[in-house]
Amino acid sequence: MKRLVRFGVSLDNDLLESFDRAIGLRRYSNRSEALRDLIRDNLVDQQWDENKETVGTITFVYDHHVRDLTRKLTDIQHGYQKLILSGMHVHLDHDHCLEVLVVKGKGSEIKKVSDALISTKGVMHGKLTMTTTGKGLS
Amino acid sequence: MKRLVRFGVSLDNDLLESFDRAIGLRRYSNRSEALRDLIRDNLVDQQWDENKETVGTITFVYDHHVRDLTRKLTDIQHGYQKLILSGMHVHLDHDHCLEVLVVKGKGSEIKKVSDALISTKGVMHGKLTMTTTGKGLS
Amino acid sequence: MKRLVRFGVSLDNDLLESFDRAIGLRRYSNRSEALRDLIRDNLVDQQWDENKETVGTITFVYDHHVRDLTRKLTDIQHGYQKLILSGMHVHLDHDHCLEVLVVKGKGSEIKKVSDALISTKGVMHGKLTMTTTGKGLS
Amino acid sequence: MKRLVRFGVSLDNDLLESFDRAIGLRRYSNRSEALRDLIRDNLVDQQWDENKETVGTITFVYDHHVRDLTRKLTDIQHGYQKLILSGMHVHLDHDHCLEVLVVKGKGSEIKKVSDALISTKGVMHGKLTMTTTGKGLS
Repeated sequence: MKRLVRFGVSLDNDLLESFDRAIGLRRYSNRSEALRDLIRDNLVDQQWDENKETVGTITFVYDHHVRDLTRKLTDIQHGYQKLILSGMHVHLDHDHCLEVLVVKGKGSEIKKVSDALISTKGVMHGKLTMTTTGKGLS
Repeated sequence: MKRLVRFGVSLDNDLLESFDRAIGLRRYSNRSEALRDLIRDNLVDQQWDENKETVGTITFVYDHHVRDLTRKLTDIQHGYQKLILSGMHVHLDHDHCLEVLVVKGKGSEIKKVSDALISTKGVMHGKLTMTTTGKGLS
Repeated sequence: MKRLVRFGVSLDNDLLESFDRAIGLRRYSNRSEALRDLIRDNLVDQQWDENKETVGTITFVYDHHVRDLTRKLTDIQHGYQKLILSGMHVHLDHDHCLEVLVVKGKGSEIKKVSDALISTKGVMHGKLTMTTTGKGLS
Repeated sequence: MKRLVRFGVSLDNDLLESFDRAIGLRRYSNRSEALRDLIRDNLVDQQWDENKETVGTITFVYDHHVRDLTRKLTDIQHGYQKLILSGMHVHLDHDHCLEVLVVKGKGSEIKKVSDALISTKGVMHGKLTMTTTGKGLS
């Protein structure tokens, strides 16, 4: 069961002042929220290192005029359909499309889909963003 | 007008062998495509450094049971509506939602939306992914 | 004057358990020390973003048999001598040397030295590591 | 035996112009050298992913007034002496020291030394920089 825990942190006043200034600039409402975010960010990195089930987004930009490209990208996605939860397509301009896929699975599997899409000829830029299922992080 | 240019690259055979092995693992069909991707990745970083108009995706995971959170996140998005091209919402499980926004504007502006969303209490994890409008990179 | 401050952080027990496990794996003796490190890491990134006076190390690996390379690298270092505090040279094997320089100055200036060294023909790999003068972070 | 190989790369003139501008800003003397650096950077990342024998530098900043800290850091270094090739110590100001170690071994082993040093109470900031033995990259 979820339960709120409270514990004390001690640090030097100089460090605390610098931190308060920094979180103010980034709009945090209080220290606890900012510290929770630093902790969660750190844990997400570790979940990916340990190859646990996790969630990512794959963002890629391509020129839809490249012959046969749309079909190839769709084929790859079908090959990994168990991993892909959903996708969104944005028309950036007359030539360029951006696609974002939300992917769930082991980190190593997600990297395979990501590599396959990004290495396709005609995909101009692509990135895998590592996030989380949210479990154990709230 | 777009025109295909060809130029020669010279390197040691050892380095070339290592590179060929690496791009094989990542499924590139040929060296030119792999090199174009390295070049474009590098240029995208630079476009963000120079604060030019560019494109990003903001991914964040949150617990939709947190009181008032959905409204707050919507309010922030309305405040920056000129930057936000579109969004997608995925239900990860009973508690957790993932949202991805596609954002276009100056890098510094995109970072503001991203900071505002990620620092909101109840957002468990968030990341800004820097990509490109595609212009000048094909 | 330096003064130890203590404040309370509240978070869910799930998140705290995950964090305690993570910091155990990385050998932290207590939560305060681990949190201070997350905070300082975050502040160092920000000092570099804001182009304040800071400290970095520049690591580069090169083949000392490349004609004229040692002289070129020395010339570059002399051109930026006000920034370079000290350097160390390691013979990795018969061909390869590693050099690390400790550099102090504005972030943008440090990047210039780093770019100049890393782009020199014969330098095989180089990286700038962003750290801190330590001021305001203890 | 080392042998220089030459091969052709084809890309659009737009992309090439952007690349030429970028490498000019970073002071590369020609495209081949800039491309070799992109390739080697990519291969270094992969060597670390594959946990091969490699080289890194560990940079850390600490306050030498912290009781017993110097002894603790020395003890850790002795525990991993087979990995540590050499070290350099810089006095940043009255309180703060920076130390850089050059470390050689499997990536996973190097990460252990780095975690042990950085997590020590009194070490304010630390980073592991991943570079290379240089083999296969010239």
